[in-house]
Amino acid sequence: MQLGMIGLGRMGANIVRRVVKDGHECVVYDHNPDAVKAMAGEDNTIGVSSLAELAEKLNAPRVVWVMVPAGDITTGVIEELAKTLEAGDTVIDGGNSYYRDDIRHSKTLSERGIRLLDCGTSGGVWGRERGYCLMIGGDPDAVAQAEPIFASIAPGVEAAPRTPGRDGEVAQSEKGYLHCGPSGAGHFVKMVHNGIEYGMMASLAEGLNILRNADIGTRIQKGEGDAETAPLANPDFYKYNFDIPEVAEVWRRGSVIGSWLLDLTAIALQESPDLSEFAGRVSDSGEGRWTSIAAIDEGVPAPVLTSALYSRFASRRLDEFADKALSALRKQFGGHEEKPGD
Amino acid sequence: MQLGMIGLGRMGANIVRRVVKDGHECVVYDHNPDAVKAMAGEDNTIGVSSLAELAEKLNAPRVVWVMVPAGDITTGVIEELAKTLEAGDTVIDGGNSYYRDDIRHSKTLSERGIRLLDCGTSGGVWGRERGYCLMIGGDPDAVAQAEPIFASIAPGVEAAPRTPGRDGEVAQSEKGYLHCGPSGAGHFVKMVHNGIEYGMMASLAEGLNILRNADIGTRIQKGEGDAETAPLANPDFYKYNFDIPEVAEVWRRGSVIGSWLLDLTAIALQESPDLSEFAGRVSDSGEGRWTSIAAIDEGVPAPVLTSALYSRFASRRLDEFADKALSALRKQFGGHEEKPGD
Amino acid sequence: MQLGMIGLGRMGANIVRRVVKDGHECVVYDHNPDAVKAMAGEDNTIGVSSLAELAEKLNAPRVVWVMVPAGDITTGVIEELAKTLEAGDTVIDGGNSYYRDDIRHSKTLSERGIRLLDCGTSGGVWGRERGYCLMIGGDPDAVAQAEPIFASIAPGVEAAPRTPGRDGEVAQSEKGYLHCGPSGAGHFVKMVHNGIEYGMMASLAEGLNILRNADIGTRIQKGEGDAETAPLANPDFYKYNFDIPEVAEVWRRGSVIGSWLLDLTAIALQESPDLSEFAGRVSDSGEGRWTSIAAIDEGVPAPVLTSALYSRFASRRLDEFADKALSALRKQFGGHEEKPGD
Amino acid sequence: MQLGMIGLGRMGANIVRRVVKDGHECVVYDHNPDAVKAMAGEDNTIGVSSLAELAEKLNAPRVVWVMVPAGDITTGVIEELAKTLEAGDTVIDGGNSYYRDDIRHSKTLSERGIRLLDCGTSGGVWGRERGYCLMIGGDPDAVAQAEPIFASIAPGVEAAPRTPGRDGEVAQSEKGYLHCGPSGAGHFVKMVHNGIEYGMMASLAEGLNILRNADIGTRIQKGEGDAETAPLANPDFYKYNFDIPEVAEVWRRGSVIGSWLLDLTAIALQESPDLSEFAGRVSDSGEGRWTSIAAIDEGVPAPVLTSALYSRFASRRLDEFADKALSALRKQFGGHEEKPGD
Repeated sequence: MQLGMIGLGRMGANIVRRVVKDGHECVVYDHNPDAVKAMAGEDNTIGVSSLAELAEKLNAPRVVWVMVPAGDITTGVIEELAKTLEAGDTVIDGGNSYYRDDIRHSKTLSERGIRLLDCGTSGGVWGRERGYCLMIGGDPDAVAQAEPIFASIAPGVEAAPRTPGRDGEVAQSEKGYLHCGPSGAGHFVKMVHNGIEYGMMASLAEGLNILRNADIGTRIQKGEGDAETAPLANPDFYKYNFDIPEVAEVWRRGSVIGSWLLDLTAIALQESPDLSEFAGRVSDSGEGRWTSIAAIDEGVPAPVLTSALYSRFASRRLDEFADKALSALRKQFGGHEEKPGD
Repeated sequence: MQLGMIGLGRMGANIVRRVVKDGHECVVYDHNPDAVKAMAGEDNTIGVSSLAELAEKLNAPRVVWVMVPAGDITTGVIEELAKTLEAGDTVIDGGNSYYRDDIRHSKTLSERGIRLLDCGTSGGVWGRERGYCLMIGGDPDAVAQAEPIFASIAPGVEAAPRTPGRDGEVAQSEKGYLHCGPSGAGHFVKMVHNGIEYGMMASLAEGLNILRNADIGTRIQKGEGDAETAPLANPDFYKYNFDIPEVAEVWRRGSVIGSWLLDLTAIALQESPDLSEFAGRVSDSGEGRWTSIAAIDEGVPAPVLTSALYSRFASRRLDEFADKALSALRKQFGGHEEKPGD
Repeated sequence: MQLGMIGLGRMGANIVRRVVKDGHECVVYDHNPDAVKAMAGEDNTIGVSSLAELAEKLNAPRVVWVMVPAGDITTGVIEELAKTLEAGDTVIDGGNSYYRDDIRHSKTLSERGIRLLDCGTSGGVWGRERGYCLMIGGDPDAVAQAEPIFASIAPGVEAAPRTPGRDGEVAQSEKGYLHCGPSGAGHFVKMVHNGIEYGMMASLAEGLNILRNADIGTRIQKGEGDAETAPLANPDFYKYNFDIPEVAEVWRRGSVIGSWLLDLTAIALQESPDLSEFAGRVSDSGEGRWTSIAAIDEGVPAPVLTSALYSRFASRRLDEFADKALSALRKQFGGHEEKPGD
Repeated sequence: MQLGMIGLGRMGANIVRRVVKDGHECVVYDHNPDAVKAMAGEDNTIGVSSLAELAEKLNAPRVVWVMVPAGDITTGVIEELAKTLEAGDTVIDGGNSYYRDDIRHSKTLSERGIRLLDCGTSGGVWGRERGYCLMIGGDPDAVAQAEPIFASIAPGVEAAPRTPGRDGEVAQSEKGYLHCGPSGAGHFVKMVHNGIEYGMMASLAEGLNILRNADIGTRIQKGEGDAETAPLANPDFYKYNFDIPEVAEVWRRGSVIGSWLLDLTAIALQESPDLSEFAGRVSDSGEGRWTSIAAIDEGVPAPVLTSALYSRFASRRLDEFADKALSALRKQFGGHEEKPGD
């Protein structure tokens, strides 16, 4: 079948390559003509220079995948597609949109008889090779229409052993894509997925940091400290110099925490045992925030996921005024002066 | 070579089976004679009825694995072994001991010329099949002496693809066991491993709970609530009924959070989609606590790992007096009465 | 001057009483005629049976205080006032409205030339006697118009010693009310105030709970515990039976944590040392949630305030599915059965 | 009566001044002779140059207050006093000792018939004027012996209104000192007190930081952000420039969060509205750590108190390796580069 692709960044381009590999044809567009030119030469890949041309090159009913930055840019493309496409066509928002935007965009498009699928897409730079995990929301008929595309992009059932108890016919979920529910459901599930990702990443990071500082007893002497700092009670218990890359490696086989994130940790530490080229200013890109807001709205506790989010904020020193207030208070009640930094 | 095994519970018995499968001979003891009887018939497995007999049946220098509950029971066995074994022998504590106990036990044994290795052992009930991840602390010569045993118990390099950048000779860590450092180092690394495990588990659990409650907008009406309860601002954004087992399944292929814990989550949900046979009283078994204490002693933040620990405490209602104090305070300043439960 | 009051609940009625005590006249309305009847007999207090009558009884330009539940009810009253009042009048929303609603309501009213002030009001059931702390947002002229009312409701400068460095003319803030900024600013500051309140309350509650359980060494024996539960390492360090009401009392004088919330804690514990009439289901009423959402939107960490919020959710068992998932996972990888409750 | 004082730092010196003001006589010692010289001239204050001379100048049974840094220094003084004093004498450790050290020190001294009282002392630099809150552990007879001293140091009942329900004879706790239980009980209660202090301080600090960043909508445009950073959804909701010192001031009268810490916050902000002379490196001095460890040992959740502790660690950048690991992981799976700092 045919797929239109709007947005040829890392993700969009790699999705196209998985789709054409299965014999589908892709009509591709990007606001940057060079990106179009770069891909147009590839198998089964036709470049176009406008959304109108994209619509023209696709046979109705069309399926168009939008893979551009979430927020205003996605909204702009959706609104333009509402004018360009026709009733019966399907638009797939594969980016990192807030699920609430999907609900809104879905209404915009449905006024023209166009259906929106929201599709959370996980896999990062490795997806071209491993396939992408797809979490889909929207109209069931539109999902059925686009299913061959989803199947090409997803990893397929052979990517993991089947869960015991699952036999017979292979379910969608086992192939690596899932129709999760009505409009917004896909990005809701992807949002929570990323919230979990933040928590798992922070779990690994905090653990490595504890290992890294297990030598503190060789740096601080027993009883050292003063009125401003807690002395270390038991320096003899903290005299380990762990080889962190080797520890990450050994955990990869047989341990309970075996995971793709651990595999990547091992790669990162293999490349750079001290991670010294990083400053430790950790970005966040929306889903982690939205997950915590969802927990708060639902009234359910998410202390781990939210702690992971706040640690990222703190890594960018966004707690500065709070910290100054604490130092100021300590000076007020105890006459404590701040200790100079190292 | 020969291995003595003390403690034939689930873990001890399965370790013996992996060891004998590689042609080693095991002399096995348990304080419960029936457990000894049950294993004694197996290949290359000799049962004994006392530690003295165990010492007698093993050729010096001996290697004896202790796999009994941490704390006083392990200490008791170690102290008895100090009397039973000889200089040059090696004792491996494979249980969940606190690494500080290893340091102490190591001194006890070294007075008799016996060496203690502490060996954190991860793999749970699946270890017999998958192999166990081994994190080892203690004397390098003793590690070398016992290495064939470690190699039999560990999963082996083929259990996972090699980390890019690692080629040539296969390192210990790639086979699934690692000499982490001096006495206590193995259990220190295992402790942190379990801390990470708590954090990852809680990440998954919190995420699933957010999905589970994504239908709250169908249960609570807009503006519902009173002076005691926050109204739900946007019920329309929370009307999803997710099929949680399918969501867990789809994440297993291609997603960033792919992990063994996720695989197990999928199995658990396949067996019981509502998990209704669980009450949700979550135990903790030491390492999670010790990890947080290590972070505090080192002075490094571990908000995610400690939140995961505290959630387990809260699941057992150990925050009851704190909650009562909050309700009492709300009544004092606002005249708020507690709302009845559901 | 005159003040119209809509809503004669605990807060509304007590505010009226502070206002009339200073010689102002109040025209009061409630949707419950009995509430109006009950107050109408008091000094300088005129009861009315409709908003139209309320408008009629007040001389223009009018000042009308709305003290009804936040959300849809407040919105309804505001919309009705938009039809009943005239250009030049001022409406004060003194309830617990979300500041974003104020911004919206302010626009609704300004189309008719009516000004909205949002006024966060803290003081609870004690406010009649102690005065209320007022955090005000909106048009400066409207603030000036209503200032005599604010001054009557607020505690006044004598309620606390002046802050060193503040001398000369007494600022608004020192009298207990403050114009914080444009529309929404008052409820924004009140929201953060309540977030802080949650954090302080939880600090006290957690501390008391630690004192309460300081006898755990008399309940659990050393080394007790099993594969499912961490043994208590040092029971001798936890054999204290603290008299919690006396501890709360001693902290009231000279300590760093002296506070009104501590005073109330002491009262609550004096009334009920075990707090046994409380179940510990702690409600939350919006501001705590909104504070955490504001932190997330701003990208600043608020781990303490959000932990306090999540503890309230957990007290109402809203983490149940998460806890079940953890127990299910422990069973999967370790064969651990849940322990029965007490 | 007579009191011996060892340690003439800020706290020790001010305690002496409260004691002599009530007509008691103080014999004072410090390892720094200049500190002794400086005080020896004051009313009822006799300086000595050794512990032996201190013992000589005091009539038996003696009461000796030790006010030196916790840890090894306190242990050294206690051990020396064990040799210098006699059976029937009482030593009071008024410093910030770990309560577990008190239990140990108590045994050391009791072998010589000397009794140890542990006395948590709260009040900071303001204590000379306000009095100190005293939390006492140890032998009841020794408490009775030293009670006149405690009464002089504590604020006295008039420092706060009596708690409703408390009438008739004034309890110890109402005077500002309390015998909390056996050895260690005083410092245990003081430890928890400081844990609560950390939580309350962090509550205020986080709240102020949220107010401070409420202008983020004027700094970041709607939709701004890129694949690395979450865009701000609603900049219009974050355009407030709050006058933080005025906000702190208004909360001092009538609000629920009125507290001594808030009073000090107001002073600090009055002195320095931007707190620009602070770097925000917040020290911690032991009790906060020990409180969290006590919670973990007891198995009770303390998410707020521990979050407050971890925020202090993070303010000193002790999470650096964790943050680098997160950045490294983001690069691995998503190709995300760290954003440069400001």
